Formats: sequence, structure tokens, C-alpha cells
Amino acid sequence: MICCHGLKLDEEVQEDVRRRLLSVKGHVEGVLRMLENDHVYCVDVLKQLKAVGGALGKVGDQVLQSHLRNHVVTAHERGDEERIVGELMEILKYR
Amino acid sequence: MICCHGLKLDEEVQEDVRRRLLSVKGHVEGVLRMLENDHVYCVDVLKQLKAVGGALGKVGDQVLQSHLRNHVVTAHERGDEERIVGELMEILKYR
Amino acid sequence: MICCHGLKLDEEVQEDVRRRLLSVKGHVEGVLRMLENDHVYCVDVLKQLKAVGGALGKVGDQVLQSHLRNHVVTAHERGDEERIVGELMEILKYR
Amino acid sequence: MICCHGLKLDEEVQEDVRRRLLSVKGHVEGVLRMLENDHVYCVDVLKQLKAVGGALGKVGDQVLQSHLRNHVVTAHERGDEERIVGELMEILKYR
Repeated sequence: MICCHGLKLDEEVQEDVRRRLLSVKGHVEGVLRMLENDHVYCVDVLKQLKAVGGALGKVGDQVLQSHLRNHVVTAHERGDEERIVGELMEILKYR
Repeated sequence: MICCHGLKLDEEVQEDVRRRLLSVKGHVEGVLRMLENDHVYCVDVLKQLKAVGGALGKVGDQVLQSHLRNHVVTAHERGDEERIVGELMEILKYR
Repeated sequence: MICCHGLKLDEEVQEDVRRRLLSVKGHVEGVLRMLENDHVYCVDVLKQLKAVGGALGKVGDQVLQSHLRNHVVTAHERGDEERIVGELMEILKYR
Repeated sequence: MICCHGLKLDEEVQEDVRRRLLSVKGHVEGVLRMLENDHVYCVDVLKQLKAVGGALGKVGDQVLQSHLRNHVVTAHERGDEERIVGELMEILKYR
């Protein structure tokens, strides 16, 4: 079976993303351990959550850049630009 | 002189964006009038600023969608995909 | 008539915010002038919109800091903490 | 030893946050499983990352609301408003 109209995530990027997400997971586990502590300070939790969010944003950047480079710039040639632009705007649009 | 490597904002979108930005400008002027008042409440100002930011975000969505549709999906054919992806990531990247 | 339960924006901050917003308005007018040009590049517009958004965000920071400092940290003493927290969360909550 | 100047995360909120973060962790693990697949589509990954980011943002909202309610509105009474406002702005400020 062919995934996603034949457009799949670049292998190298996939490996990089996997590695980064493992680190995000480790970070979330770190915050979970903080929360087992009886005396955790709100602001310390907020700082960690913000850092996790930042790391997640950078993972997204990797995937987005790879998608632009490998699938979006060639969309007109393939003839699926309507779908490509629509689904991308769904993700990128302001809130 | 040829602007921007021959890639210019779609005329119809340009008109729509201009109209929306005029409304954003009017909104900013409204907040400025609020601030001439001696008794303005912080939260009312914050609400208005958030609304202006939202309107600005929607203007950006219009321009972004038009750029994707008219210039990004054809970048590989033109051969300028490196530049197109680079400058787009500069704008879209997570903070 | 007493505005906003007697809680008004600090005068000095109000002046600073007014000055910054005038600059935001000038920036929006600059983008409007760009859009009168027949050959404007999408990415140049997007960059300007992002800069305006950033300036707007900094205005918000000034107002927020002033609100926290002058009204939020004293809410329990006044007894209006329920309202103060509710309206602040409405503005700060994640999307 | 007294944590965080005696200001600790409300116990009930702490339990709710822990539960939500466990779910975020599960979600990240789900994306990691997606990435073991040979044929994963960029846009599907981006959608999942956006959903994880949204869930994380809601966790942050819980902690922030609890912090406002339990520590910020009483800061002036305790006399630590300078620190409280400073560290909060560090987290909330526009980028």
C-alpha cells in the first residue's frame, strides 16, 4: 500500500525527528517526576512546560522544512497543489 | 525593474489585504482613542490588543496562502526552491 | 463615574503604550504604502506583518506587567480576585 | 526544607496536571510509533505535533491559573510582588 499519495517523510529527517521526540518524551517524564515531589513550585513547572513546548516547536520546524523542500515546491508539477496548500494552511493558519 | 524575481503578490489578494490592513489601522486608532481617556482599564486594552493581533494574523494567512499557491508550489519548476524554502522557514519557524 | 472598579492603567505606562501604538500605526501605514506598489513581494509583506505583530506583542507586555504589578498582586486584599483571575485567564489562556 | 518560598502548587491541580501530562507523554509515544513506520506523511506528523502542543498549552493554563489564584493575587500581602511579577513576565512575555 502506498502511503500519503507517495509523499513520505524524508528518511534522514524521520530519524532526526524520532531522536528529538525521544528527548521531548524524556523532558515530559522529568516534569512528571517533578510533580511527584510534594513541594513543587508553579513557576518551575511553567518554565519546564515552556521548554518542552519550545522543543516540540523545533521538531515541527524540521518536519515543516522537509515537507516544503520535498513535497510543496513540487506540488504544481504533480498537480496536487490544491490539496497540498489546503492541508498546509490548516496547520499554519493563525490560531 | 522587476520586483522580487518576478514573483509578486496576486492583485486580488493585494486588494483584500489592503482593505483588511486599513481595518487594522482603524482598530489601532480606536485603541489610541481609548488611551486618551483618563480612566482606561488594563484588561480592556489587553483585549483590544489581542483582537488587533488576531486581525493581523488573518491578514498574514491571506498573504501566506497566496504565496504558497502562486509561488511555492511552482518553485521546483523555476529552480529557486532553495531560496523559497529558506525565506519561508525564516518567517514560519517556531519563535 | 469610576472606571473599571477603580483600577486604571498607570499613567506613565499609558503614555508609553500610546507612544508605542503610534509607532505600530505608522508601521501599518508603511505596509499599506508597500501595498500601493504594483510589484510587492509576498515574503516582504509577511516579514513586515510579523514585525508589526512583534511590536504589538511588546505593547501588550507593557500593559500586562503594569496590570500584574498594580492590580493583580493586590486582588486578594481588595477581594476581587475571582474576577481578576478569570478575566486574566481569558486573555492569557493557550489559544 | 521549604520549597519555593513556601508557595507550592495546589495539590488537586498537581494531580490534574500529572494526569494530563501522562496523556501528553502517551501522545508523544504515539507519534514515536508513527515514526517507526516506513511510510509516514509529513502533514500527519505536523498535525499530531500541533495536537501535542495544544495539550501542553492546556496543562500550562491549569498551572498558571492555580498560580494566579493561590500566589499572585496575594503577593502584595506577602511583600514578594517584585519577584512574583518578574518571574511571571519572564514566562508570559511575547516571545
